[in-house]
Amino acid sequence: MNETINLMMNHASVRKYKEEMIPKETVEKIVYAAQHAASSNFVQAYSIIHVTDQALKEKLAELSGNKHVSTCGAFLLCCADFKRLAHAATMHDKELVADTMESLLVTTIDVTLLSQNIALAAESLGYGICYIGGVRNNPQQISQLVNLPDRVVPLFGMTIGVPDEEQLVKPRLPVSAVLHENTYDGEQYTQTLPAYDETMREYYKTRLTNQKDMTWTGSMADFLSVERRMYLQEVLEERGLLRKQ
Amino acid sequence: MNETINLMMNHASVRKYKEEMIPKETVEKIVYAAQHAASSNFVQAYSIIHVTDQALKEKLAELSGNKHVSTCGAFLLCCADFKRLAHAATMHDKELVADTMESLLVTTIDVTLLSQNIALAAESLGYGICYIGGVRNNPQQISQLVNLPDRVVPLFGMTIGVPDEEQLVKPRLPVSAVLHENTYDGEQYTQTLPAYDETMREYYKTRLTNQKDMTWTGSMADFLSVERRMYLQEVLEERGLLRKQ
Repeated sequence: MNETINLMMNHASVRKYKEEMIPKETVEKIVYAAQHAASSNFVQAYSIIHVTDQALKEKLAELSGNKHVSTCGAFLLCCADFKRLAHAATMHDKELVADTMESLLVTTIDVTLLSQNIALAAESLGYGICYIGGVRNNPQQISQLVNLPDRVVPLFGMTIGVPDEEQLVKPRLPVSAVLHENTYDGEQYTQTLPAYDETMREYYKTRLTNQKDMTWTGSMADFLSVERRMYLQEVLEERGLLRKQ
Repeated sequence: MNETINLMMNHASVRKYKEEMIPKETVEKIVYAAQHAASSNFVQAYSIIHVTDQALKEKLAELSGNKHVSTCGAFLLCCADFKRLAHAATMHDKELVADTMESLLVTTIDVTLLSQNIALAAESLGYGICYIGGVRNNPQQISQLVNLPDRVVPLFGMTIGVPDEEQLVKPRLPVSAVLHENTYDGEQYTQTLPAYDETMREYYKTRLTNQKDMTWTGSMADFLSVERRMYLQEVLEERGLLRKQ
């Protein structure tokens, strides 16, 4: 339809990169463009740590369980940030209230709007990217490594680099399963999900790497029937992003 | 730099639209393209309700405190959704665990990645957009109006339409205040924030509508020194997105 939409449609996570660092000026340009995403009441409650130190990248790769964190052209740590806003409040002798569920949603949404712009801006320049949720494996240790103050917490990371692999685009859920008109239609799932399973089984069987016999609902059922990262509530409380219960 | 980055740099929220509905097929194309955003472990934990019913749009405008919800060309309600995944789990005789802080972050991030793609896709087609956080003013009533089942919760909305106003792009924080190298730099705020305040004072004084004498830190200090939407934790618990404490 147009360049931007084509770019979106061609997204696939890239985990193998050429040994080519992304110049700092390019990362700055990408982040600055991305900052033009909307922000809830213009709070801009985010920070990005661009990790250029190789030893640090290797530690972060280990702590997040993703080897390509150490081999990518730029690793970005995407953080919820109310520290800057606490500073703003102090300038006006006010006390910041930013330890509620509302403020947590606001900062999470803000960081993510920014980050998806970063992803697309990077891809528009020919780079490949991969989000790193594994950052939430060790949020406290990672925070210490990059000296995050209180009120700042890493939510996820992003690797960016010159692609050294080709990946097929994964088929998404049919749009009819995601987009409802006026009223939520849950009845459809008895039909749409088995049909999507067939599409995904075919994809997993024939994709370029890591072929397997698997369905989407099957892998989701396995993955989501286990409690994960149960320490996160406490981490958010300790870092000052949520009030202690 | 390129079409996609130019598009990003020119984002400004649009609240006044021409009386021109967006065809359903166009909304479908936009959402389908947007679905190609990354998704944490490919859970795709989101749903979008496209509200086409005018009476419903008017009720939602009232409940979210945003008049342009009723006058836009398409209103989208952007929802966290684990209902579809609960269905998937049931298909395999498993029980879904999706009421933890981790799962809340996953779905919030997933919805937001999708939504920022929707925003950019819409803008790439010449439409204007505005995020509607006001949806969180009345999440339970809004959920009832569009028949959201348990495990689904509206996080924000988006108005899309043919712009009927021109808006200047708001100056963002300097990139140096947002992008840190290897270590978080909070010391800078004593300098960067007053400088940004001057930029914003000039912007607010000279922008096209709603001119005022205001700084960024001043408005943030006022806005963020008050508790907001304190019922959200309970709403998330009641709708099955968080375990009751």
